[in-house]
Amino acid sequence: MSLIVMKFGGTSVANIDRIKNVAKIVEKEAKNNKVIVVLSAMSGVTNQMQNYIDEINSQQSIENDLLLTSGENVTIALLSAILNNKKIKSIPLLGWQIPIITDNNFQNAKILNIDNIRLNNFLEQFNVLVIAGFQGINYEGYITSLGRGGSDTTAVAIASVTNADRCDIYTDVEGVYSTDPNVVPEARKISKLAFEEMLEMSSTGAKVLHTRSVELAMKNNLVLQVLSSITNKPGTFIIDDNNLIEKEIVSGVSYSSNESKITISGIPDKPGISALIFGILADKNINVDMIVQNISQDGINANITFTVPNNELNYAKEILQNNLNKINFKTLKTDQKVSKISVIGMGMMSQSGVAQKMFKTLANNFINILAISTSEIKISVLIDEKFTNIAVKSLHEAYNLNK
Amino acid sequence: MSLIVMKFGGTSVANIDRIKNVAKIVEKEAKNNKVIVVLSAMSGVTNQMQNYIDEINSQQSIENDLLLTSGENVTIALLSAILNNKKIKSIPLLGWQIPIITDNNFQNAKILNIDNIRLNNFLEQFNVLVIAGFQGINYEGYITSLGRGGSDTTAVAIASVTNADRCDIYTDVEGVYSTDPNVVPEARKISKLAFEEMLEMSSTGAKVLHTRSVELAMKNNLVLQVLSSITNKPGTFIIDDNNLIEKEIVSGVSYSSNESKITISGIPDKPGISALIFGILADKNINVDMIVQNISQDGINANITFTVPNNELNYAKEILQNNLNKINFKTLKTDQKVSKISVIGMGMMSQSGVAQKMFKTLANNFINILAISTSEIKISVLIDEKFTNIAVKSLHEAYNLNK
Repeated sequence: MSLIVMKFGGTSVANIDRIKNVAKIVEKEAKNNKVIVVLSAMSGVTNQMQNYIDEINSQQSIENDLLLTSGENVTIALLSAILNNKKIKSIPLLGWQIPIITDNNFQNAKILNIDNIRLNNFLEQFNVLVIAGFQGINYEGYITSLGRGGSDTTAVAIASVTNADRCDIYTDVEGVYSTDPNVVPEARKISKLAFEEMLEMSSTGAKVLHTRSVELAMKNNLVLQVLSSITNKPGTFIIDDNNLIEKEIVSGVSYSSNESKITISGIPDKPGISALIFGILADKNINVDMIVQNISQDGINANITFTVPNNELNYAKEILQNNLNKINFKTLKTDQKVSKISVIGMGMMSQSGVAQKMFKTLANNFINILAISTSEIKISVLIDEKFTNIAVKSLHEAYNLNK
Repeated sequence: MSLIVMKFGGTSVANIDRIKNVAKIVEKEAKNNKVIVVLSAMSGVTNQMQNYIDEINSQQSIENDLLLTSGENVTIALLSAILNNKKIKSIPLLGWQIPIITDNNFQNAKILNIDNIRLNNFLEQFNVLVIAGFQGINYEGYITSLGRGGSDTTAVAIASVTNADRCDIYTDVEGVYSTDPNVVPEARKISKLAFEEMLEMSSTGAKVLHTRSVELAMKNNLVLQVLSSITNKPGTFIIDDNNLIEKEIVSGVSYSSNESKITISGIPDKPGISALIFGILADKNINVDMIVQNISQDGINANITFTVPNNELNYAKEILQNNLNKINFKTLKTDQKVSKISVIGMGMMSQSGVAQKMFKTLANNFINILAISTSEIKISVLIDEKFTNIAVKSLHEAYNLNK
């Protein structure tokens, strides 16, 4: 008998009919296995709570997390009741009942400890545990929430401490695709992917899994599967790269328009100037991504281009202008209409010519590259936002991902 | 500095604006006192949960109570956040965080213990505690609900263990009235009422307070006030009768149409026959109220009339028919179109002629009395339902309650 952790998001439990559908999926798995189900709130409920918080302008962390975590009570109770009605011995459990202990970082809490002995006791008494995702309890006894992707994190953390055989993340897509099917209809569902590839995809625009849960799964070498709660098909397995028999040179193409470009020019070209600029930004927690630095000929006309997330642009500008006398730049220009396009693949490490193919494909489509950044398994370029679709399509074809 | 417990029901916290109004009332009280607020869920939310339970036909007690208690998370978090925004140091607390320990009688749990030491710790740290009504936790760590009138019970229980100076029950009426103002526009708000009178009123149709919370307050000699969360007026104080300076002969007239009459006739008139009948019904937990027994002349034609709550009528009929060979009755007739009219007053004990005035008033209005029951402070009569309004009006006037 195996232990399977299954996580269902808000759209999978949006109403009674959808929850009954989830019960069917769980029932099938519970025939031969012990099962732990992790649920989100019904889609829309957590947003309603966020609206309340905005309406009363609440800055109260304990109260806000009590609101944000209130919807899961309903979904876990309903699923567990439906399962018990089917004679599948089941129990609904809130974060504090296990308990899932977190730090005090309300709204974005980190799991510190999960009581495995109590979880195992519950597993001895019941065939299915239905656990509220996204929530924990701090050492003072107040409810905390885990932030974005929190239910995925709960599922992966519980799968890790219980040594589960698999952690299935059910969602409204059939798996991880070679690129966004809305942009490239020929996009193909990937059957197996390395953790590192999934991490790069998540951080470069593919929204299937939050990087945090992938990191946690990788750390614990846990087999993850992303699959659909609607169609009845195998999804994408995310596994240790040692278990990937054939490593794709390029597994996927991702894109993100959540980038803003900042160019500061007329900087004195002296040693330590970029350390100074990025030190100032780092002190204020600005996430700088791609950096291009042009060394000047005359020693006074250097310029630096870099990207920050859209929502940090105004703050970054403000910081730089407040430090004008330290940096001594002449002009500061910004551009929000840029996109980051990334190609990702484990096989890239041992294969040359991948970057060259990317640059050539873009050049053939008359797309100018504004900045480049690379890792061992990823190449990202910054381009004008209006070329996003044509870049993604042509790269997807160039690397033969339509096959 | 006093300690005041304030309870607000579902209509008082129905939306953000109403909760802001509650915050104003609490703010005023919190200027000079420590305050414990007990809240219900937003009106409609608990019904929505009951609809879910009905829709999935859930018989699961743990799951049902998890659903039924989920709405209070939202109201306590919102009120506490609004109070903290006003710089009133406040904390929201769920039943398990105190904890409020109950028995295992899910859906109708009884409070066994409230941790007063922890409550006092919270009161030292915060000016206002905002506590979820209607919920507790059993010794196994599962959430339980307290059943009908549960939030009132929470408020009275907490006021009792903390030795609060007063327990204010805020509602959508201005207090307890001499009768239903919808029937008699001249009905008068009662300023002071004895626990016993309130108990009789609650059990004979006045829906302001559940008998359970009145019993608990009486047992702990706690001063209760029923008042409106909308108008800013003193309500009705419910106190120990020793503190009532002037005891009204009749304080109020109440009515209930939730009665069904059963008449079984042609019974052999032998000793022990009523003990047999009411023993059979008591064994099945049927609540028999008013009983009229006619002794026959010939020893075989006795008949017995009694009342049961409407929702127990069919079950009572079934039980009686199943025991036909034991009881040996000839006919069984039922009538749902009856009303119980009650006049209630502590002064009745020392005053004669109260019953006579009631019977005479009804006779003057050509209303036939079908059954009578009395206690020391209450006289109830059963009449044809269609005479309910005229009976209530004429009695209210006869006892001079319009003054």
